[in-house]
Amino acid sequence: MEETNLNQTIRCIVKLGGAAITCKNELEKINEENLETVSSHLRQAMNLGSCSTQVVGMDWSKRDAVSDISSSLCDFGDQCQFNVDFSRFVVVHGAGSFGHFQASKSGVHKGGLNQPLVKAGFVATRISVTTLNLEIVRALAREGIPSIGMSPYSCGWSTSERNVASADLSGVAKAIDSGFIPVLHGDAVLDERLGCTILSGDVIIRHLAEHLRPEYVVFLTDVSGVYDRPPTDPNAVLLREIAVDEDGKWSVVKPTPQSLNKQVEITVAAHDTTGGMVTKISEAAMIAKLGIDVYIVKAATSHSLRALRGELRHGIPDDWLGTVIRFSR
Amino acid sequence: MEETNLNQTIRCIVKLGGAAITCKNELEKINEENLETVSSHLRQAMNLGSCSTQVVGMDWSKRDAVSDISSSLCDFGDQCQFNVDFSRFVVVHGAGSFGHFQASKSGVHKGGLNQPLVKAGFVATRISVTTLNLEIVRALAREGIPSIGMSPYSCGWSTSERNVASADLSGVAKAIDSGFIPVLHGDAVLDERLGCTILSGDVIIRHLAEHLRPEYVVFLTDVSGVYDRPPTDPNAVLLREIAVDEDGKWSVVKPTPQSLNKQVEITVAAHDTTGGMVTKISEAAMIAKLGIDVYIVKAATSHSLRALRGELRHGIPDDWLGTVIRFSR
Repeated sequence: MEETNLNQTIRCIVKLGGAAITCKNELEKINEENLETVSSHLRQAMNLGSCSTQVVGMDWSKRDAVSDISSSLCDFGDQCQFNVDFSRFVVVHGAGSFGHFQASKSGVHKGGLNQPLVKAGFVATRISVTTLNLEIVRALAREGIPSIGMSPYSCGWSTSERNVASADLSGVAKAIDSGFIPVLHGDAVLDERLGCTILSGDVIIRHLAEHLRPEYVVFLTDVSGVYDRPPTDPNAVLLREIAVDEDGKWSVVKPTPQSLNKQVEITVAAHDTTGGMVTKISEAAMIAKLGIDVYIVKAATSHSLRALRGELRHGIPDDWLGTVIRFSR
Repeated sequence: MEETNLNQTIRCIVKLGGAAITCKNELEKINEENLETVSSHLRQAMNLGSCSTQVVGMDWSKRDAVSDISSSLCDFGDQCQFNVDFSRFVVVHGAGSFGHFQASKSGVHKGGLNQPLVKAGFVATRISVTTLNLEIVRALAREGIPSIGMSPYSCGWSTSERNVASADLSGVAKAIDSGFIPVLHGDAVLDERLGCTILSGDVIIRHLAEHLRPEYVVFLTDVSGVYDRPPTDPNAVLLREIAVDEDGKWSVVKPTPQSLNKQVEITVAAHDTTGGMVTKISEAAMIAKLGIDVYIVKAATSHSLRALRGELRHGIPDDWLGTVIRFSR
C-alpha cells in the first residue's frame, strides 16, 4: 500500500457514531440537535488557538423553505476576514438509520453482486449513506468548518473478505494539506472475494489512524463509553480506562478488576450490520496499540468537548465521563 | 497517466447538460420533468436487448412526504427477478443552477485557495454540485439504473492550469466492470498551479472518451444542437453536421457552407464559468478527432432518444434534429 505523506501530523480523527447523529429507530432521520452541537464542538476544538468567535457559514445552498440566499452572503462582503485556519482533523461518520436498512434488506454485507437484489441494494445503500454524508458536510460547513465529503467507494477503498484491500489515502492527505477537513463514512464497497460488502466507519478509522498517525482518536457515541454490560442494565458500570498490550489484548484498568464482580459483557445492537460495540472495542484496541490514545465518549456533552479539544492527553480528570483506551507496555 | 483497462468496451458516454436538467435561472432548482424523461430514455437506451418493460427502482430512500418505504420494497420479494443487465454507459452532468453561483461569487475557477473567500466558495460549490449529483443518481436509480455517484474531486481528479493533471480512471473502470453506471459531474478540484479551479463536465467527458474509447458520445442540451448564431436569433440555422480534421479543426458540412450566408457564431452564456458553447464544440471536436461520433441534441426529445440508442451510427435520417460532429480524413 502506498505510503501517505503529510506536510504535518494531524491532530485528531473523530468518529461521529451513527447512533449519536441519527435517530436510530426512525428511517433516515438525522438527530438535528445533536448534529448541531457536535458541529459546534468540532469548530471549537479545531479553532483552539483562535480568539475569533464569529462563525461564517460555508454552506451557501438553499435550505428548505429559504430560497433567497443572497442575504446570508452579504455577511462576507469584499473585506471578508473569516477564520479558516483549522487544526488538522479528519471526520468519519457511521450510518445510523441511513443505509443499514437498505444493506440488511438486500444482504450487501454478505456479497454476491451478481444477484439483482444485492446490486440494487448496493445502489440503494450508497444513495442513503451519501445523503447522510452530504447533510453532515453541510452541518459542519454551516459552522464555518471547511469540510469536504469523500466517499470511500469513490476514493478507491475496496476490501478483500471485509479487510481493507486498497485505499488511496493520498486524496485524503492532499485535502488535509490544502486546509480542508475530509468527511468520510461507512460505505458499500467492492470486495475482491465477496463481490461487495459494507465497510464500517470503525474499520475506516483504524486504517486512517494506522496510516495518518493522529495525536488522538475520539469516538462520539450515544452512551457515555464502554460498559461492563448493556448500558440499559441499571447495574452497568462504565469502564473508565482500558489498557491494550503489545498483542492487542485489552484489560480493564479502572475501575479495578476486583471492583467489577463479573466478566465484561458487550452490547451488540440487533440491526447493526457492522458489529456494534464488539467491532468498536477491537478497532479501538488496534489503534491504541499504535500508541494513539482513544476516547469513547457521549456525543454533544461537555465530556466530548474536552476529549475533542485534546484536554485529556495529559491526564484524565476524575469528573470526566467516558472510556480511555490506551497502550501500556 | 495510468492506462485504463476495461473488460469490454463501453457503449456510450452521455453528458447531461446543466441547462437541460436544471432551471438555469432559478438557484438550485432541478428541471424535474426533463430529468425524469431523460432518465427513462437512458433506461431504454441501456436496455436495448431486453424485452422487459418492468421498472424496479433502486432508490429506497425516503422521498419528501413519503416516510414509509416498506411498500415500495414489497415489489422485490424473494423471487425478485429484475433486469440489471445494462449496457455500458457513463453519465457526466453539468452544474446548471447548482454550483455556478457559489463558484462565481467566490472566484473558485480563478484559484487562490489560501484566500478565505475562495476556500469557503470551494466548500460551498462542492456542497451544491454534490447535492445535484445525488439527485441525479436517485432519479436514475428510480428508473432501475444501477447508478453510482463518483465525484471527480473524491476520485482523484486534479488539474494543472485547468488541464487535467491526474484522474484515476481505474475506479470508473471497476465500477463499469461491476455492472454499475458511474455518474460524474463538473466539480471544484485542486489545481497544481492555481490552487483550485472548476473542472467542467465537458472537459471530463473528453478525458473519459480519450481513455475509455466509447462507441459514441451524446451531449444532451437545452437547444436542438449547434447553431450558426445564438439560437434565440430567429435566423439561427442548425448546423447538422460538422467535420473535424486530423488537426482538430472543424468545418460545417451540412448545411453546405454556400447556404450559410455568414461565419458561424457561437453563444456564450453570461454566467457559465466554464465557457458554454465554445468549450463544448472544441471538446466535442477533440473527441471526434479520436474517431468517436459526437451527437449534440436537445434533451428529453425523440431525437435524443434515437441518439442515445445509437440509431445514428449508420447514417443520419433526414428527420433527425441535432448536430453530428465526426472525424473526416
